[in-house]
Amino acid sequence: MLWGMDHAPAEPPFLSDLAPRGNPPQGLDTHDGHQAMRFAGPFMLECGTVLPDLTVAYRTYGTLNADRSNAILVCHALTGDQYVAEPQPLTGKPGWWNQVVGPGRPVDTDRFFVICTNVLGGCMGSTGPRDARTPGGELWGTEFPSITIRDMVHAQKRLIDALGITRLFAAVGGSMGGMQVLEWAATYPQSVFAAVPIATASFHSAQNIAFHEVGRQAIFADPDWQDGFYWRDGRIPARGLAVARMAAHITYLSEQALTRKFGRRVRAAEGADPRTVGLFGDMFEVESYLRHQGSTFVTRFDANSYLTITRAMDLFDLAAEHDGDLSAAFRGSPTRFCVISFDSDWLFPTAQSRAIARALNRAGANASFVEIASDKGHDAFLLDEPDMHRTLSGFLRGCAEHAGLA
Amino acid sequence: MLWGMDHAPAEPPFLSDLAPRGNPPQGLDTHDGHQAMRFAGPFMLECGTVLPDLTVAYRTYGTLNADRSNAILVCHALTGDQYVAEPQPLTGKPGWWNQVVGPGRPVDTDRFFVICTNVLGGCMGSTGPRDARTPGGELWGTEFPSITIRDMVHAQKRLIDALGITRLFAAVGGSMGGMQVLEWAATYPQSVFAAVPIATASFHSAQNIAFHEVGRQAIFADPDWQDGFYWRDGRIPARGLAVARMAAHITYLSEQALTRKFGRRVRAAEGADPRTVGLFGDMFEVESYLRHQGSTFVTRFDANSYLTITRAMDLFDLAAEHDGDLSAAFRGSPTRFCVISFDSDWLFPTAQSRAIARALNRAGANASFVEIASDKGHDAFLLDEPDMHRTLSGFLRGCAEHAGLA
Repeated sequence: MLWGMDHAPAEPPFLSDLAPRGNPPQGLDTHDGHQAMRFAGPFMLECGTVLPDLTVAYRTYGTLNADRSNAILVCHALTGDQYVAEPQPLTGKPGWWNQVVGPGRPVDTDRFFVICTNVLGGCMGSTGPRDARTPGGELWGTEFPSITIRDMVHAQKRLIDALGITRLFAAVGGSMGGMQVLEWAATYPQSVFAAVPIATASFHSAQNIAFHEVGRQAIFADPDWQDGFYWRDGRIPARGLAVARMAAHITYLSEQALTRKFGRRVRAAEGADPRTVGLFGDMFEVESYLRHQGSTFVTRFDANSYLTITRAMDLFDLAAEHDGDLSAAFRGSPTRFCVISFDSDWLFPTAQSRAIARALNRAGANASFVEIASDKGHDAFLLDEPDMHRTLSGFLRGCAEHAGLA
Repeated sequence: MLWGMDHAPAEPPFLSDLAPRGNPPQGLDTHDGHQAMRFAGPFMLECGTVLPDLTVAYRTYGTLNADRSNAILVCHALTGDQYVAEPQPLTGKPGWWNQVVGPGRPVDTDRFFVICTNVLGGCMGSTGPRDARTPGGELWGTEFPSITIRDMVHAQKRLIDALGITRLFAAVGGSMGGMQVLEWAATYPQSVFAAVPIATASFHSAQNIAFHEVGRQAIFADPDWQDGFYWRDGRIPARGLAVARMAAHITYLSEQALTRKFGRRVRAAEGADPRTVGLFGDMFEVESYLRHQGSTFVTRFDANSYLTITRAMDLFDLAAEHDGDLSAAFRGSPTRFCVISFDSDWLFPTAQSRAIARALNRAGANASFVEIASDKGHDAFLLDEPDMHRTLSGFLRGCAEHAGLA
């Protein structure tokens, strides 16, 4: 564990199976309020590996209307999950987009049927590294095949089809969620009426790959990682995963936000001289905050999922899927787009959203682009940002009219 | 070691003592071409701890003139050392500022006598965590006291005094070297004719403290760190230190530079599909580069020094040393300043240099401020940047005239 923090629980709570997989072919498997659908038969990945079957864990909010036309797919980010608007079962904390999804919220569950799936490769019930390769056999662990954002979207499409939804009213998501939104629009243009990619990019930059690589090396460096087979002895690479989370977390915040929240304030013992903070005991508040971020993360997230999903983001390059021309991904698209960025986001800077908007324009797509002023960095999409909320609700309201939704 | 890299040498070369300390009181101790001066008697640190003695390892270039008025102190950055303009003895690589310091270079060793010391807390011969607490006793290790930039400057002042130099013609340095330059001008205004702080700040920001903390946690997380007593069994926390270096290295480069140098290029086995790069074997070029940075760093740098020096940077807050008023640090200063920043440096952004320039103006100091256009990020100060070289040589030439140097 982190220096100065408590030790990781001997049996990490995330190893408890939240969505035990019965065998209800093509049906809803509700267990303890958690939903998952299992699709028997092969699921082909982009890398060429075939998964023997596929489970998609998900949550829904609101009511699907009679003609199944009011569904909104919310796509989660790297360390998110399907618990958009209700307490996360492991942490008990409110849903990660509580302020955006709910009755009367921008994604209004009084009007829309909201679906959120745990991504393929995740650790909250969907098929991922914690699954057995063969029924009753060894777990995949780090040998889980390399997956892509498109693989995630293919898995989501299976669920949407099984729910009898031929066209999503909208796909909405930030960061890696935005990558899924773009991939949905590019791969299934007839199945997405409106798309809202937020704080995202059409490819993962060298800098972002580099930050991911630091996190992965921190995990690999932890002897408890055990070449990815850590589940065999119940120990988890908590130190390495915590360091990975800490490094990533800095990139989610802006310099201004860190300065505003913490500045150079010190947590020193009473009477201690803050000019001579040592390495142990006293510390800067920003350090205490980061350590907390690291130590809580490891109780809810699986290291092999972290490795798998960061790699999927690294591999994302939508233009490359279309002979290097991003606009080709959207040519003739009937989808209405609203691209949103934040001016203090340096992980997915506005320039990358602008490049998406330009490609949409070149493709003749129906697209708007909004840069929101915020000093909160990349994390802004998860936080209370009234401008983003107004933009989102306004766009969805307008699209609902065009879609003939009452 | 890093995944996929060779293992660390069993006996890390940096443990070889490069500057054995004879006992030449107040004299030059030249040993194998490496210089160090030992000052017997107590050396008081800002934290209140007293070191029983002090060794300052250093290198000089050029010739001190008769009235000892042509000395330039070059101050090194976090992982730098005294080998400014000659091969580094452990790596054999050229001096870290070869392009700036030398005959006919901006810091012209045909005209000036250049001194560079290994900082207090360093691992290239100056007093630091690799020293014995008491003669022949245990090493300090991680229990080496908390030091500050001012402590480093106090140690340098001892050397300068011992060399019979009452006033430096100039103090020049980038990054942490720039912090030392600022501290020199603030603490010994009569002893610095000209000061050139480059790509630096008058305080370490919350974001920069956060990045340092990630690196430290990576070291703490390495079981080979052994609470800092790793030298006892000869193993070093190579994995943790490498991760720390990788995280830091990203902050030294700009997004543009990473994109230009590496983009999304892949090192894949022949015939491999670059769209499906896995976690092992094939990799993005930027990953290969980072791993190399990490694995070479651990052969030349000591983990406890890294901990000590990063903390010294975190603690730096020149305004706080002057009741919160940065200009008070320079009031009545006779020193001529040239503050230099780079527009793509996001670790020490131009705004922080501008704040220094403003404080100098408020103090009525003789100051100029130059922002250099470069896409190379913080590292620009170490690289071939003709604009920086012109600025530096022009400023030093002008100051030399004012100082009456031939």
